[in-house]
This record gives sequence, structure tokens and C-alpha cells, in this order.
Amino acid sequence: MRQAGRYLPEYRETRAKAGDFLTLCKTPELALEVTLQPLARFDLDAAILFSDILTIPDAMGLGLRLDEGIGPQFNHPVKSGDIAGLERPDPLRDTGYVMAAIRQIKSELADKLPLIGFAGSPWTLATYMVEGGSSRDFTKIKALAYQSPEAAHQLLSLLASAVSDYLNAQVDAGVDAVMIFDSWAGVLSPDAYKEFSLQYLAQIIDDLSDAVPNIVFCKGANHSIAEQVKIGPSALGLDWTIELGVARRLVDGRVALQGNLDPAIMLTDSATIERETQRVLQSYGGGAGHIFNLGHGITPNVPPENVKTLVDCVHRYETGKSNS
Amino acid sequence: MRQAGRYLPEYRETRAKAGDFLTLCKTPELALEVTLQPLARFDLDAAILFSDILTIPDAMGLGLRLDEGIGPQFNHPVKSGDIAGLERPDPLRDTGYVMAAIRQIKSELADKLPLIGFAGSPWTLATYMVEGGSSRDFTKIKALAYQSPEAAHQLLSLLASAVSDYLNAQVDAGVDAVMIFDSWAGVLSPDAYKEFSLQYLAQIIDDLSDAVPNIVFCKGANHSIAEQVKIGPSALGLDWTIELGVARRLVDGRVALQGNLDPAIMLTDSATIERETQRVLQSYGGGAGHIFNLGHGITPNVPPENVKTLVDCVHRYETGKSNS
Repeated sequence: MRQAGRYLPEYRETRAKAGDFLTLCKTPELALEVTLQPLARFDLDAAILFSDILTIPDAMGLGLRLDEGIGPQFNHPVKSGDIAGLERPDPLRDTGYVMAAIRQIKSELADKLPLIGFAGSPWTLATYMVEGGSSRDFTKIKALAYQSPEAAHQLLSLLASAVSDYLNAQVDAGVDAVMIFDSWAGVLSPDAYKEFSLQYLAQIIDDLSDAVPNIVFCKGANHSIAEQVKIGPSALGLDWTIELGVARRLVDGRVALQGNLDPAIMLTDSATIERETQRVLQSYGGGAGHIFNLGHGITPNVPPENVKTLVDCVHRYETGKSNS
Repeated sequence: MRQAGRYLPEYRETRAKAGDFLTLCKTPELALEVTLQPLARFDLDAAILFSDILTIPDAMGLGLRLDEGIGPQFNHPVKSGDIAGLERPDPLRDTGYVMAAIRQIKSELADKLPLIGFAGSPWTLATYMVEGGSSRDFTKIKALAYQSPEAAHQLLSLLASAVSDYLNAQVDAGVDAVMIFDSWAGVLSPDAYKEFSLQYLAQIIDDLSDAVPNIVFCKGANHSIAEQVKIGPSALGLDWTIELGVARRLVDGRVALQGNLDPAIMLTDSATIERETQRVLQSYGGGAGHIFNLGHGITPNVPPENVKTLVDCVHRYETGKSNS
């Protein structure tokens, strides 16, 4: 998940300098700055590109606004009749600022740490594009999917190509791994998830460069972990509503697992964070194949010292394990 | 789930007459009126008491406000230090208006249809009481649960007793079945769900009158269906993120299943509603033990004729089955 963010005072300073969130994303020097901020504070094992999952719909001309407190909004939400007119963006021409940021970050990191790039999944991007922003009941995108499945599939297929192009361009620019966020997988029934989300994730994994590993995160879709494994990701990201031990038995060594501390734990105290972090680590059970992470994004009010507690706790556990 | 609601023009009329939602709940004659409204329109198999899950915290003196568009809010949210001072309400004295409504509804129904009563689960009530209303990240109640588990358990234990008292009083007043809504079960990890929610549902089921069946609905907690069966409910309510056929194999005839059409389907057209309703019915696979329902509450903008389409479709399927 993201490392940079409003919980860091230095982030809020850069953010104020940028004026708004989208300018921060679109200015490589500033994206570089905030990408590196968490690394200066914490003993992290990887850097995570600072960007937003909605760069692709923005590149498609939907007019993205990211206002503090309101959530993302599009000036031109997509209606059924607009879909045929949408164009597949050129990642270098239309999201060149992301690739420029990646090149600058890689140059600064100088092979000391790997860099993880990312994109939103076709289904998740489509929810924002059709709803026009964040949603509670997802009624517009679901009405499209259920009533006009051909139009929905046309949109999702276009987005799958766009995401593949975008992630392959990130790999060309230097990222060492890519992650795909299906943040709204969980609003669908298992059948609908397979039809409107998972098959497009499969298409992306087929189209992705084999040069780097990929991580697929389908929040709320633990009902279909076996099917997620079948599409061939390198790792699955997991939210906190499944025990890692249960997930590990399900995937049976075929993929690595990333996760899955409840982000709300980050707002408690150090003793609670250590206890719950150890519980997650012990649930996985040691050995290869676990990338420790939160089960979703870090929230704005987390005290930075709590992140240090977490990172140090994970590293102590790793050291303890390798000594034993 | 609720049958009455803003999607019905006659409900909006009674609601306007009442002035506000809470007055509607607290005036037995008006609660009777809106409880009967859906039965006049649709060929339903049961009546559902019109009320709100937050009557118990309101009876505990938290000062409930239910303003349109904002969601529920408490004037006096519960802080850790307040818990010892909270008192177990007397259901007849403090929520007598609910029992009066039940008696009036039963008298009107005259044994033509059964009446279903309900309550919120201890965990779900606690989330509203501690957060002070609806929440996005549930950070306050989780901080209480993780950092001060003794205080959290004191609150949840009190609520379990209060919910048992309340539901037993509903049974005494005449309801033919009770449902317990754990609407926010899904925000917890499986371990935390068992510790902070499921054990209190078990306590309620132990304390409940055996005179009527009970239905337990833990939204977002399909990770623990086997454990839900073990606490001994008559039926489990299911959201739409599990296939009924999968759930049926898991429960293996030990409980009935209620559910689970995605409520967003109700905003599409009649052909889509019929197709998706049949998919749910076929997923269960026929035979005894299925109570058809939506997977969550009906939303305000549903055209009433779509509910008729749904109800008629379910009845046609039943008839078709019994003829075959």
C-alpha cells in the first residue's frame, strides 16, 4: 500500500507546496520527494511509487479532480453511450509524468532498494469512471454491468489494455515490481467478480512483462482466492478479513502472500501494534513467501512513530526467525 | 431486511406526517401503518416490524438523532470511562413503543402472515455508540477493542443482555421470528470477529426464547460461516458475496439460509431482476431451507414495480419447483 501520505508532516509540506494532490502526482520532482520521505524515516524494504490509481481515466480525458475530503471526482463521468468513443491512452504521451518520476526515483535509489509501481484494476477504474467518483452502493456501474454487459465488457477490455500498457511502461522506466489494486472487488458477488473483474486481471497478467513480479490485491474478494491463484500472479495482496494461515493453506505455495494487518491498529499504541503485528506474522507461520503489509492503505491520522514501531517489530521477528 | 422504506410513496407520506424518522419508530400507530404498507402492494410471505436497530442505545440515554441524509448520530457517544455507568434497559419501560407496535401489527395481521422482529448485534450497536454514528474506518471502536479489551467486553456483555431482553420482549409481544443484524461484522479480522462479535451472538442465542426461530445475519463475515452455525441459530442471513450453493454445502443442512440477491439489482430492469433472481434460487438448488431475500437492505430509489417483479419471480419459481 502507499507509504507516503498525510500522516507525515513533511508530506503535508510538499503537498502544500504543490497546491493540490493532482499537481503533486503530475510533477515528477515532487512525486520523487514524497516517494523518498518514508524511506528517510523508516527502515523499509522497498520504495512505493507515489501516484494515484486514477491517472489512466484522467489520461482518457475524464477530467479528474482530487479535492481534499471529498474524494476523487470526474468532470465527465462515463455513460453507456460514451464507451465506444473512449481511446486507449499512450502511456508515454499521456502519463509520461509517471514514467519521469519513476526514472528519477530509480536514479536516487541507486539500487539500494527496489521500487514498486502500481495501477488500478479495470473493474475498480470502471467504478470510478461510471459512478463519477467514490460510491456507496455502486448502483450505476452495476446497472451497466447487469443491464448492458456488452458495453461494460467493452469498457473493461479497453481498461485492461490500458493498464497493461501503463504497467509495462512502468517496467520499462525501471520499477522492480508492479501491484494491481482491485479496491472494489468486494462489492460484487463471486460470479460477477469473475465475469467483470478477474478475467481482466488475467488478461493483464498475460500481457505483462515477465521481467518483474506482480502482486494482485482484490479487496473483499477472499471468496475467490483459489481462482486468483489460477490467473498466475507472483503474489496476492490480502485484506485483514482472512487469517494468513488459512490463505497460505489455500494457495499451497503457488504464490507469495502480502498482508494483512488491519490499518485501524496503526491508531492504537505500541504494545497493541506489536502484539497484533506478531499475530499476523505468526498466522503466516514463518518461512519464505510472506511480504508483511497492512491490509489496506494507511490512514491520515497515524502517528509516524507507530509506523516505526511496526517496521521495527517486523524486522525483529525476521531476525529472530533467521537466528532460530 | 426491511420491506418498508423511502422507495414507497405511501411510506414517504407517513414519514412526512411523523415529521422525523425517530417519531415514526416511536409512534405505534405510524409504525403499524408503514409495516403494513408493503404487504398491501406485494405478495410477501412475512411482515417485518418497522423499527430501527438503534432503539437500544437510545433507551440507554445516548440521545439518538436520525436525520435524513446524514445517518444516525448520538448526542452522547460512549467513551471508555462511561461504560461502567451504562444501565441495562428495561425493554417494556424503555422500548415499550416497540412492543405496542408489535401487538397492534399482530392484531391487524390476524394470523394471516407471520411477523419478524429484530435487533442489532452487540458489536454493531457498539460501533455506533462509540463512533457516535456511522463510520468509515471504525477507528474509535477498534481502538477500544484492541487497547482496552476489558472495557470493550464490559460494553458488549451489557449489550448482549440488553439485546436478549429486547428480543424476548418482542417474542412475548407476539413476533413469530427474530433476526439479529450484525451489519458491521465485516470490518473485523476473523479472530477479532470471534472475540468481539460472535461470542456475544452465541450468548444471545442461548438466552433467547425457544418459542420462535432466530436468524443471524453477519454482513461481511462469510469467512466464519462454520463458526456461525456452531452457535446454534435457526437460520443464517447471507450477503451477496457468497454463492448460496457454496454456503449450503458449508452448513450441511444444520441451519436454513436467507438471502442473497445484490440489492443493486433492484435498480435495473425486470428482465435483469428475473435473470439474477433465478440465478440466486438456482444457486441454492431447491428443496427446503431457503428464505429468499436481498443480501442487504433495499435502497431508497428502487421503483416499487421492481419489487413486484422480484416477489412474483420467486413465487413462480417455488410453484414451478413444487409442480415438477
